[in-house]
Amino acid sequence: MTTMGSLHAVVLAGGSGTRFWPLSRRSHPKQLLNLTADGTLLAGTLKRVESLIEPARWWLVCGDAHLEGSKQAVPDMPATQMLCEPCGRNTAPAIGLAAVTLLRDDPDAMMVVLPADHHVADFDAFCNALKVAAQAAASGSIITLGITPTRSETGYGYIEKTEETLAVDGAFQVKRFCEKPNLEQAQAFLEQGNFVWNAGIFVMRCDVLLKEMKRQLPSLHASLETIAGAIGTGDYRTVLEAQYKELSGISIDYGIMEGAESVGVVPVECGWSDVGSFGSLDAVLERDDAQNLTSGKVVALDSTNCTLYATEGHVVGVVGMKDVVVVHSPDATLVIPTERAQEVRGILKEMEERKWDEYL
Amino acid sequence: MTTMGSLHAVVLAGGSGTRFWPLSRRSHPKQLLNLTADGTLLAGTLKRVESLIEPARWWLVCGDAHLEGSKQAVPDMPATQMLCEPCGRNTAPAIGLAAVTLLRDDPDAMMVVLPADHHVADFDAFCNALKVAAQAAASGSIITLGITPTRSETGYGYIEKTEETLAVDGAFQVKRFCEKPNLEQAQAFLEQGNFVWNAGIFVMRCDVLLKEMKRQLPSLHASLETIAGAIGTGDYRTVLEAQYKELSGISIDYGIMEGAESVGVVPVECGWSDVGSFGSLDAVLERDDAQNLTSGKVVALDSTNCTLYATEGHVVGVVGMKDVVVVHSPDATLVIPTERAQEVRGILKEMEERKWDEYL
Repeated sequence: MTTMGSLHAVVLAGGSGTRFWPLSRRSHPKQLLNLTADGTLLAGTLKRVESLIEPARWWLVCGDAHLEGSKQAVPDMPATQMLCEPCGRNTAPAIGLAAVTLLRDDPDAMMVVLPADHHVADFDAFCNALKVAAQAAASGSIITLGITPTRSETGYGYIEKTEETLAVDGAFQVKRFCEKPNLEQAQAFLEQGNFVWNAGIFVMRCDVLLKEMKRQLPSLHASLETIAGAIGTGDYRTVLEAQYKELSGISIDYGIMEGAESVGVVPVECGWSDVGSFGSLDAVLERDDAQNLTSGKVVALDSTNCTLYATEGHVVGVVGMKDVVVVHSPDATLVIPTERAQEVRGILKEMEERKWDEYL
Repeated sequence: MTTMGSLHAVVLAGGSGTRFWPLSRRSHPKQLLNLTADGTLLAGTLKRVESLIEPARWWLVCGDAHLEGSKQAVPDMPATQMLCEPCGRNTAPAIGLAAVTLLRDDPDAMMVVLPADHHVADFDAFCNALKVAAQAAASGSIITLGITPTRSETGYGYIEKTEETLAVDGAFQVKRFCEKPNLEQAQAFLEQGNFVWNAGIFVMRCDVLLKEMKRQLPSLHASLETIAGAIGTGDYRTVLEAQYKELSGISIDYGIMEGAESVGVVPVECGWSDVGSFGSLDAVLERDDAQNLTSGKVVALDSTNCTLYATEGHVVGVVGMKDVVVVHSPDATLVIPTERAQEVRGILKEMEERKWDEYL
């Protein structure tokens, strides 16, 4: 295990993951799911950087409700390095909280920010890209990993890169961040070849981030300073709650990246997937001969292109289904066409109205 | 409660009910299912004759595996009147066993034979028909109830009646029993108007049945005599097992009715359904505004003509489904198009091959 100087891993685990209901719940979000036999997405997130960053430098930012689940999923992470947010305020405050906490003990701290609920197939390619990013970030730039696009996806933000390298080979100066494009734009991005997907993976020096925050988000910066002053005191939780309550939710992309002084991107092909819904499980499960993705005890007759989940001890039997998701969990079952998988939100909304909160 | 002279109710509860998997199981057949809030089909079978036949004259023939479940479903029935068959040998032996048992204490015994797993909406019409049948049967005929057909069903046997009455008004001499017809025949039967469905409901004097058995099924008759001789002795079970082991399975229709000396039919309209599969639950459940049949906690969005079952404590969420059956049970879930509901057998066969016996 080679550990880079002051590089820490900061995992953002604030997601609610409604799109994987009934497997995911308010109390059990996507990053804590065992979607494959390999363990949770959260554990996988740290496993893939383990060769670069040792567990003593692993950090996590999550909601109170997910602390216990996170501890179980990543027992190697020091529990004191799991930072709880009293409420969700999007990514800028979460990353800022990690930055001020890290800087307290390590003025040279540099962090790799990692979403907790993605999948990466090629660890080596991923870590090599992080190494390049860390070298580039050491000299003061904020570096993003840019996933080489494989399709004209309209669900992600894009980053347009220049040909100008930043400090090291493989890191390029960013021309601009683009919000989710329409299909025509996405097709153009794919053809042009100088656009990559913004996967929310960043490498930066903590002091650089805070300097940018002071300039671009001064109110958030002031709050973080106040919180930093309370770290290690009996007032910490009270101060944290008071400050968070008043914070506006803002993303790191919109709040910092788009206006930062020096932003670079390291393109990488690493078999990345955001595992966004039941329709995108090809990244983590293999299809059988009938092109079905199955997990658990499943009997599928005359059925193709289905995603079929059975909880341990339960059997799911399916006849004559095509392009359908059937997911059984201990207390709820979902049946939905794959291409409409996002509409599971409608089920959740209906259950909220019916006050069936125990299933949310 | 008016009780007719020597009239007994004999319920045939030998069915395995694979067509309602995963609700029905080897150990929990269709007649023991709570398909509606009204209780089991078995309890309903006796409830509908209660005004005619008191519980002291209720009898049941079932397999060993279903005795306990039957006792729970019909606590009013004397447990000693639940006759266990060591193995299934179709309806002729089951009815014969009931006949010899009844005759031992009541030489004038007459029985109404009732399948355990049907539904009847109109109890009065049903009981009135049974009264007519009992009067006709008293003079020595075997009487069947003939359900007035409401569609050109190819899944049932038919009875062609004559215009000649048998002893009483409303009971007609049978011209012939017809096996399940093809669609063309079924349409002709419906148009002609002199055909009724054979629902397996019979009224007869026990001595008349045994006389017919002696003539038409002498080997079965001899076995039943041997069994009858052992009733009330310590050898009963041994004798019963030895005799049943050697019996051929044969139905009362094929073995007795088609060749009986005097057979009559009492046509009746009583909202009868054999509740044959998940596709035929309209008889027992009401459709909601979206034409779905639902039971339990179900959220159905943009879905019509579905049959949706959730076990207590479980939620079934469905989006964008049409003409689909989704049935959740504690340890197994089925998803199948309504019109292919019979193909659930393929699931059972596959599970047998995989040795998943605990789900059968």
